[in-house]
Amino acid sequence: MALKTLSAKAAAALDRDLMCTGAFSIDQLMELAGLSVSQAVYRVHPISKGKRILVAVGPGNNGGDGLVAARHLCHYGYQPTIYYPKRSNNELYQRLAKQLEDLDIPFVDDFQTALQSSDHVLDAVFGFSFSGEVREPFPAVIQAMSETKIPVTSVDAPSSWDIEEGPPKSGIGSNFHPDVLISLTAPKHLAKHFRGRHFIGGRFVTPAIAEKYDFDVPAYEGVDQIVEVGPDGSRL
Amino acid sequence: MALKTLSAKAAAALDRDLMCTGAFSIDQLMELAGLSVSQAVYRVHPISKGKRILVAVGPGNNGGDGLVAARHLCHYGYQPTIYYPKRSNNELYQRLAKQLEDLDIPFVDDFQTALQSSDHVLDAVFGFSFSGEVREPFPAVIQAMSETKIPVTSVDAPSSWDIEEGPPKSGIGSNFHPDVLISLTAPKHLAKHFRGRHFIGGRFVTPAIAEKYDFDVPAYEGVDQIVEVGPDGSRL
Repeated sequence: MALKTLSAKAAAALDRDLMCTGAFSIDQLMELAGLSVSQAVYRVHPISKGKRILVAVGPGNNGGDGLVAARHLCHYGYQPTIYYPKRSNNELYQRLAKQLEDLDIPFVDDFQTALQSSDHVLDAVFGFSFSGEVREPFPAVIQAMSETKIPVTSVDAPSSWDIEEGPPKSGIGSNFHPDVLISLTAPKHLAKHFRGRHFIGGRFVTPAIAEKYDFDVPAYEGVDQIVEVGPDGSRL
Repeated sequence: MALKTLSAKAAAALDRDLMCTGAFSIDQLMELAGLSVSQAVYRVHPISKGKRILVAVGPGNNGGDGLVAARHLCHYGYQPTIYYPKRSNNELYQRLAKQLEDLDIPFVDDFQTALQSSDHVLDAVFGFSFSGEVREPFPAVIQAMSETKIPVTSVDAPSSWDIEEGPPKSGIGSNFHPDVLISLTAPKHLAKHFRGRHFIGGRFVTPAIAEKYDFDVPAYEGVDQIVEVGPDGSRL
């Protein structure tokens, strides 16, 4: 059995289906996506391994998932720190950021310095809508995440990877190999190039949607919002 | 230590605080509230005890929590059935109902008949904004939930109970004693009259909000969205 994956185009269409015909709001989907991400971090990096989670937040939906995850991680007892250099005017992201400020979660301007005093990094910079070049100020962030000895968990895609082809052949991101990937709803094509621990999250996909996009809803356990899968996509 | 509880007025003010100064959307809060409810049902009534969950859904926010819980229960492997006689025109509830229809979850018109073939009942009829008389068609529903041998879990309040005073002294609801109560954000005054298993859910309250309303955020464990508490409100 081979891992079933989605193209960037299919992932975007699936999101539209969830929100249009599926009647989900982006608030709902982002809350459940971010919750999944927080549970994956808890699974691979329990609090006993260190509380300090640095969250690199990009300007779009991937960043939004990171903001939600940071809030849940704070409630679990972690100490998140947020690097969010390109704040969106989008009202949803502003609210998600406010929710973190109300928990006294610090926002920092210097990623590299914050990295020195962190135990784990959550990469929520770019998701499945990424293409083209990594824009400023993110090249240095990708570089730092490529070089750090601290474990890195990427949300939906290792940031800078091509959604279809995986790691770039040269330049920024070519040596970025995060330890953990959490694919939201279903893995994207890039997951075939990923060699770390792989989770799937987003427990809201209906059987009809999974059938339409030709993937299998993974066998989640109990009330878990995540499931760890092997190279063929079956539950570990 | 005595159980710290909220008046109906304080509970309403807390909700307003979460949405205004706290910047939460109702979609977010209802998603997390309903998720908590689904986890409490899973805890007290694992699938091995029977999959068939009848969800009694009222016209307001309590009903919305029930609709969300039913979706999550379906994803856990239960077979929910929805009794939702007074559908709201509110766009959010319409979307939540659509999400259930997309999972082929049946909506039924006859509560008592559905009760005959159910293993557990989720009472999401009225919440903390309830006051006055139980309107049609709910008196017969409360009566059936009072008399059934099937375990009943109430969301935020046993429906028909006075939020401050607890069970009515006579008439509808005076003999309604559900097995399980899940209090959302914090118990309401009525919880002092409740003798079953008691959970608290809604893991999004900031320390500042808890301080303002004079209650303690309970000691949730791991990634749990619920915590079971004893008569004094401490974790069991």
